[in-house]
Amino acid sequence: MAPSQISDDELGEIYTFAIQLGKDAGKMLMDAARLRMSGSEGVQKFEEKENAVDIVTKTDTDVEAFIHKSIAEKYPHHKFIGEETYSAGASKDYLITRDHPTWCVDPLDGTVNYTHLFPMFCVSIALCLDGIPVIGVIYAPFLNQLFTACRGRGALLNETQRLPLIRDSPIPPAAPKGCVFSCEWGKDRRDPAKGEGGNLGRKIESFVNMAVELGGRDGKGGMVHGVRSLGSATLDLAYTAMGSFDIWWEGGCWEWDVAAGVAILLEAGGLVTTANPPENYETAEIPDVRLGSRLYLAIRPAGPSETETARQSQERVVREVWKRVTALDYARPGA
Amino acid sequence: MAPSQISDDELGEIYTFAIQLGKDAGKMLMDAARLRMSGSEGVQKFEEKENAVDIVTKTDTDVEAFIHKSIAEKYPHHKFIGEETYSAGASKDYLITRDHPTWCVDPLDGTVNYTHLFPMFCVSIALCLDGIPVIGVIYAPFLNQLFTACRGRGALLNETQRLPLIRDSPIPPAAPKGCVFSCEWGKDRRDPAKGEGGNLGRKIESFVNMAVELGGRDGKGGMVHGVRSLGSATLDLAYTAMGSFDIWWEGGCWEWDVAAGVAILLEAGGLVTTANPPENYETAEIPDVRLGSRLYLAIRPAGPSETETARQSQERVVREVWKRVTALDYARPGA
Repeated sequence: MAPSQISDDELGEIYTFAIQLGKDAGKMLMDAARLRMSGSEGVQKFEEKENAVDIVTKTDTDVEAFIHKSIAEKYPHHKFIGEETYSAGASKDYLITRDHPTWCVDPLDGTVNYTHLFPMFCVSIALCLDGIPVIGVIYAPFLNQLFTACRGRGALLNETQRLPLIRDSPIPPAAPKGCVFSCEWGKDRRDPAKGEGGNLGRKIESFVNMAVELGGRDGKGGMVHGVRSLGSATLDLAYTAMGSFDIWWEGGCWEWDVAAGVAILLEAGGLVTTANPPENYETAEIPDVRLGSRLYLAIRPAGPSETETARQSQERVVREVWKRVTALDYARPGA
Repeated sequence: MAPSQISDDELGEIYTFAIQLGKDAGKMLMDAARLRMSGSEGVQKFEEKENAVDIVTKTDTDVEAFIHKSIAEKYPHHKFIGEETYSAGASKDYLITRDHPTWCVDPLDGTVNYTHLFPMFCVSIALCLDGIPVIGVIYAPFLNQLFTACRGRGALLNETQRLPLIRDSPIPPAAPKGCVFSCEWGKDRRDPAKGEGGNLGRKIESFVNMAVELGGRDGKGGMVHGVRSLGSATLDLAYTAMGSFDIWWEGGCWEWDVAAGVAILLEAGGLVTTANPPENYETAEIPDVRLGSRLYLAIRPAGPSETETARQSQERVVREVWKRVTALDYARPGA
């Protein structure tokens, strides 16, 4: 079955199925979290955080198996790529092709948060057609926040509130000043001063540039309104779609970390391109994100101002970010 | 009326009053936020973020006036300190004295988040007796999360779930490795390389030490499990009380930013001391936090292990943090 054969009605049916799947999977995550909590249900557990990792890994695997099975039963001809099944394989090749409708699923994003029971964790489900995510469902059960989008049908919070929350809000004229900047420290923790360093040093350089007062850092100071780190790429994208974050800049994610978020952000009117600045960052064309690139820069949905279209203002911010960030080093075969 | 004259029954009544006050004030915040949102209620607003600041300031003032009036009517002999009324005054003196029951209120914590409609904002209400916060109510209406505590009555999430979520969870033996570290970039954005620098440079040094691999940064690398920045000191403390964050380290807050959070964290079994390392950080006595000190280091509630009491493990983490952080410079007259 070629993607082009999927009718609009059928896409709507798949969307409904995906939303219910997200709700059911999120409930599984929350049920497992509740089992670990003491108190109201009378369960008292003595739990070391080390042991928690095993419990979390089992939940992760169980939820992916549930989602995989549900999709295979309903849509046996669709392809499925999940974090757990992928990680178990040897290849790190990019697997989303253009020739099949492909589900791209992270059963649990924000794994560290989930381990520590910080509420910023979620399930993330996307459907890609022609290699592009067109349906996105993100459900964060501890926050009771469900983000959904389907191409042509808009993006929603909890099935009623349209995203972004504030429509047609222009981007601040002196951006990144006035913007909320979302970023993550990640897992690469090599000492920037040792050997060839690593991505942490590049990130710190970039974060500090974005934060420091205007005029500081040899003109790279961006004086953002706030710097936020939640520990979930998926939720970073969802909050960018909401308009809560103006800018999200990150490297190292895999496609299941971002596919649903990209679908929701695009449908809400946001822009996603690459994290790494091209040589001529002031004039270079701004490419659409490549899902498997592991390098992402997202700008929130915007409204026009008296002097710019929405897209022009988003592209202005992309260049202002590129001016201030250091290229990250994340490899990816086959993307 | 001296604080010692407040009976346990009366304290319980005040607690009930404070919880309802928090719910009502949080609803005011959320109602004002909804007015700014487009969509479900058919309101379409063209809003520049610059204009949003004025709307937010008005809400902040209105909510504080509501809380102040409610308290004055119910408890005319109690003192009241609120962020808005304090900021309007000339003095920066510390105002919580030991001789009166004193309410310490932040009508809106996470102001930047509220302006951008990122859900991490809340109202924060504390009652101090003998200068110590004994009742704390934090309500984050967009998250639908209510944190409450009263001395001797425990700490709760949404009035039913006891805090911390996981009881008696030991602190990781190699902490800060294995810990979630919560910190904020704050408003002081002076370029670390210019003049005498500022607190941002000191913070960055400290954050990077906590994050880098073990063995890095000349032995100061802490390899924390995750670094989180939410933009609300109050909610940072609430999530530390929950056990979601193991460590919160911050400077620059005022007493209304932390009073309710400290009440909740202490009642949940956490520890709060000063952010700035003493000279002999390995052996120095660990002082209780001074509410007006503007320097805070909070450690989550813990359980004992085979070799340590809960308190011993918390103190171990305090020293491990002190080893890695740079003293911050926040002045405070009268504290």
